[in-house]
Formats: sequence, structure tokens, C-alpha cells
Amino acid sequence: MTVYLVGAGPGSVDLVTLRAATLLANADVVVFDRLIDPEVLDLAGPGAELIDVGKRPGHSNSQDLINALLVSLGEAHQHVVRLKGGDPFVFGRGGEEFEALQRAGIDCEVVPGVSSAFAGPLIAGIPVTHRGLSHGVTVVTGHAREGAAVDFRRLANPDVTLVVLMGVQRRATIMSELLEGGLDASTPIAAIERASMRGQRVRRGELAQLATMEIESPAVLVIGPVAHLEFAQVTALVDAATLASS
Amino acid sequence: MTVYLVGAGPGSVDLVTLRAATLLANADVVVFDRLIDPEVLDLAGPGAELIDVGKRPGHSNSQDLINALLVSLGEAHQHVVRLKGGDPFVFGRGGEEFEALQRAGIDCEVVPGVSSAFAGPLIAGIPVTHRGLSHGVTVVTGHAREGAAVDFRRLANPDVTLVVLMGVQRRATIMSELLEGGLDASTPIAAIERASMRGQRVRRGELAQLATMEIESPAVLVIGPVAHLEFAQVTALVDAATLASS
Repeated sequence: MTVYLVGAGPGSVDLVTLRAATLLANADVVVFDRLIDPEVLDLAGPGAELIDVGKRPGHSNSQDLINALLVSLGEAHQHVVRLKGGDPFVFGRGGEEFEALQRAGIDCEVVPGVSSAFAGPLIAGIPVTHRGLSHGVTVVTGHAREGAAVDFRRLANPDVTLVVLMGVQRRATIMSELLEGGLDASTPIAAIERASMRGQRVRRGELAQLATMEIESPAVLVIGPVAHLEFAQVTALVDAATLASS
Repeated sequence: MTVYLVGAGPGSVDLVTLRAATLLANADVVVFDRLIDPEVLDLAGPGAELIDVGKRPGHSNSQDLINALLVSLGEAHQHVVRLKGGDPFVFGRGGEEFEALQRAGIDCEVVPGVSSAFAGPLIAGIPVTHRGLSHGVTVVTGHAREGAAVDFRRLANPDVTLVVLMGVQRRATIMSELLEGGLDASTPIAAIERASMRGQRVRRGELAQLATMEIESPAVLVIGPVAHLEFAQVTALVDAATLASS
């Protein structure tokens, strides 16, 4: 009668937390999205039912459907794990699932995970903060929801690294708004395609090239002086081929 | 001959990653700071040497001392784990240690951790992003380094949650700069004292009260509409008493 909202980290089973592993091992049901590495699901016991909600057709209302599914599973089972990539409360819409469960009177426990917003760049060799280059980091999605798009002019800050998730399609707007906001055209940028997957590729350039650079979606954009750093030997890439075929 | 820079997460052993646990179990030496939960250190094998660098006297050059220590340990041992709270590359100064090791020709692998900047608020019941309340999140330190303080006027953005680490002492400046930057005086704020420790306390108020609110340091400040949310039943508090006595 408890639903656990669990962050799975950026992909690799290596970056799953001990708490998440224990909860998976004891789960009656695991609800997951398409982009979870099969090795993470292998942490669930052999008797656990696995439900993939990433493949549901259609986009509208799919979050409502997932909320309703979690409520009915929470009513029927002792121990339900809702596994989400990264951290469920950093653009994970975990809050909406939490509220739906709470409204239905179902116990819900939240387990933070390694956020892809920080670990994605790091696994590609780029630390989001670094002494002398950055005072902080801002994470936003480029994807506009309900018509309310981020105003990137307000995020033009040379002292703060900008990480943009789901921003590839709107990158021309992002570039022009950041330039309009006063960010220098030569500000280093990096686009990490297939972040934290084994097939990941990092393309680097300057802000002025963002609109025209060839970037394959999905990619994480990093904008700021740290984007030119390259810390090698970072752990935990996931095999994208396994994900795609799962 | 490898030094692993490993994020330990916000405190609780529950939020350590599987990779960190494996590396600790195989470590010859573990270098840690004062604020690591003893239960995390218990993951190290009985033969591992534990070195606490959080208790070194004096502040100046202490990072240089730690860098030098890691280099000499890396030269002498097969498997050294440098354990850092949260994520080593989100204000963890992990980048400086990485560069020192790289310069010395010592293999270094980076393992991301659950960031305290996101998990600290969440464990206190506050998600840093939530649909309809926040388009994103900015994380900065209030602590000025080398005279280069963050200009909070540029961070006054009603659509983006602001998380300030180590900001209690400068909170009068933070408040006045955010107001000057245009943030509304009634913007919700929360101060999470002893974040992620069992003795944690959340004080809530409005931005206009930030300078005069009683806040015990250390505390994480959360500024923005999400600061009034209260998601209960979040996992993984650490016993502060154990930390203090360790």
C-alpha cells in the first residue's frame, strides 16, 4: 500500500542508489519509462511485474493516465516502485504523481536520484561548476509547456553555467535571446548528444554557432566557460543499443 | 594507482550509489570530510585506511594540502577513494582535485553523486521544480570566493527557483539584491537548517523576512513559489548526532 517515487539516475545501474536497489528488490510492481537501462530493471526480483509506461501511445493526458495507474496499483499492491530517470523532482513531474497519490490517500515515499542535469554533462567530461569559471548553475528545459516558455534573456549570465534540457528544437530562439540578454557571442557551448549513453557525442562551439550547429536530439546543452573543459575518465555510460531494443 | 573522486550524496547511506559502494568495499584508503555519515564509511572494507581531511586546522591552503595528499596516496596505493558530500562537481571543488591528479599523471575516475542542492530541499519536502510554479532552478553559493561574490540582482527571476548554499551569513545582502533585481517581497522562501540531517528544521516565510528571520547556519535557502510546498514522507535523514561525534 506504498508507492515509492524513485530516481534511477542518468541511466547506468552503477548510479542507482542503495535505497533504490533495495526498493526494487522488494517490489511487487515496477512502473518505468522507456529510457531505463534493462540492467536497472534487473535489480527487481524475479516475481516483480514490470510495467512500461513510456510506450503508451499519444501525448496528451498521458501524465493523467500514469497518475491513475499509480493510484490503482497503490490500492492493489503492497510495494509499488515508480522508477524515473534522473531525479523525480527535477523536471521529472514526480510532484504531480506525488499529489495524485496523496489525494487518493495512498502512502508515497520519495527517493532522490542522481540528476541527469548535473551528471549528464559530467559523464561527458564537463563539470557544471568549476572554480574561477562559474559561480553557479541554472537548469531549465527548452521545451515550452502550456505556452509558458522560458525567457532566456533573463538567464544570460556569464557567471552562471546554463544547462538546457530538451532545448535542441528551440535552439535558434535560445541563442538569440541569450545574445539579446547580453551574453557574449564567443561564450563556449557544448551539446551532449545521447548524454550518458555509450554512443554519446559532445559537440563544442561558441554561442554564436548554436542555431546552425548540427545537433541530434535528444541533447543536453551546456552554455558557459565550463563547456570547454574536458575531464576524462568519468564513469557510467549506458549502452544505448540495449535501451533502444528494450 | 587510481584515485576515485566519488560523490557520497547528501548524507544518508541510503543515497550512496552502487558504484560508490563497490569502490568503497575495494578501497585501500578512503579520504573523507567531517560531514560524512559513519554508516557510509562502514561500506569500506575492514582493512581500509580512513583519513579525515575535514579536521585539518586552518582554512587557507587546505585545498592544496588535500590535493597533495591525494597525489601522494595515488602514487602509493592501488585504489584510493576520495569521498565528497553530494556531487563532487557541484561546488565540491572536485575539479581542482581532478586537475591536480591529472597533472601528477595519476589515473582518476569521477563518480557523480546525488546532489545536496536538489536532494537537500527535497528531503525537507520541497521539490526544486514543480509544474506551474517553476521553469527551472538555479544553484549558487552565497559564500564569496576570492572577492568575487554572486550578483543576486541578476538572479531575481520569478520563474526560476533559487537555491543558495552557504548563504546564511550574507542573507541581508541576498535579500536586498533580489528585491532590487525585481523579485516580489512576498516571494515564498524556506530555510532548511541541517538539511538532510535528522535534526533538520524548515523555516518558511517571505523574501522580505529573509534578513531578519532567525536562521541557524548551516542552512540551504530556497527562494521561489515551490518553497511553500510540503511533500512529506521523503526518505533518508541522517542522524546529526552521529556526525557530530564522529
